[in-house]
Amino acid sequence: MSLAPWRSPLSRALHLNRSQPYSRYLQLATVRKDGRPANRTVVFRGFLEGSNQLQIVTDSRSEKVSQIEERPWGEACWYFTKTREQFRLLGNLTVITVDYPDESLQKARRLVWQQLSDGARSQFAWPDPGQKRVEKASAFSLPPPLPNEPLANFCLLLLAPERVEHLELRGEPQNRWQYDLDDSQIWIARSLNP
Amino acid sequence: MSLAPWRSPLSRALHLNRSQPYSRYLQLATVRKDGRPANRTVVFRGFLEGSNQLQIVTDSRSEKVSQIEERPWGEACWYFTKTREQFRLLGNLTVITVDYPDESLQKARRLVWQQLSDGARSQFAWPDPGQKRVEKASAFSLPPPLPNEPLANFCLLLLAPERVEHLELRGEPQNRWQYDLDDSQIWIARSLNP
Repeated sequence: MSLAPWRSPLSRALHLNRSQPYSRYLQLATVRKDGRPANRTVVFRGFLEGSNQLQIVTDSRSEKVSQIEERPWGEACWYFTKTREQFRLLGNLTVITVDYPDESLQKARRLVWQQLSDGARSQFAWPDPGQKRVEKASAFSLPPPLPNEPLANFCLLLLAPERVEHLELRGEPQNRWQYDLDDSQIWIARSLNP
Repeated sequence: MSLAPWRSPLSRALHLNRSQPYSRYLQLATVRKDGRPANRTVVFRGFLEGSNQLQIVTDSRSEKVSQIEERPWGEACWYFTKTREQFRLLGNLTVITVDYPDESLQKARRLVWQQLSDGARSQFAWPDPGQKRVEKASAFSLPPPLPNEPLANFCLLLLAPERVEHLELRGEPQNRWQYDLDDSQIWIARSLNP
């Protein structure tokens, strides 16, 4: 596999905005079971090795996992505040659950778990997200799970972009490019009106 | 009409993050004609007077307008970097086009146009957004349109939330609330597990 052509401007944006921890936060849109959109902030956890797929983590108990099971499509919107540029990444979503039958992806799932902070790992031991608040504070202050083996509800979420749009607000006028993966799996780049 | 209960924490977030111009940027998800999600950054232009509807501006030539005509639903995701909190606002979208038959909403459309900067107004005079790039730089350097009357392709986009979720990452543990508009148009607030 070769690096997609949008990887280079994205790497540049990540580098130039690295002083801001939230430069790794992006908004992921999916579609709900009732056909309405859903949208939430997620954290970029690097690319899956040897691929152009973005790694995100999620909890099997979260709504997005059941949304993705039904409609495996997402668009991420990633705005970099310092360089004032936006990437939109539309593509297929795959949830690597504890019983996903692919050993190399299970390895990636374990690796991302190991790279999380104790704080991030702890959230997977918290009570059911999105349910009525458990008022007992102790439910949220358990010892952090061990880094060697992920909890069963920990999932690796992969976004495989098929179309990427890059908008630079700083241009005069603004610059906008679109990258599309064609049927032969080749990326086609075009310059568009902003 | 009374202020929805989520208006107060949202006003507070806007106030505390006001030093950052991008605190008024949010990501709006819609659904494409093919059923896949779309997601892009938009700018918050205040609330429609006497309502809980968020004002956004858009171009009738943009893809989101045709998406909304078919599926009038959106979820905005608004992350405030300084206070580390997120609002998700799910609701109905209405596009106030030049021929929308409601004089008070046309008045709101004109008012928002007048409040835009010359630079923002100019974009509505640019060549078709999302089409093959017009290379002639002069196409993007026209004199700005007059503030008194909006260009015909200028639209006011209204988001009327029915469900709002507020997540504070700074809590120990995090705090998460959900506000739902019930059948009697009353907001019900609940505290949820983060």
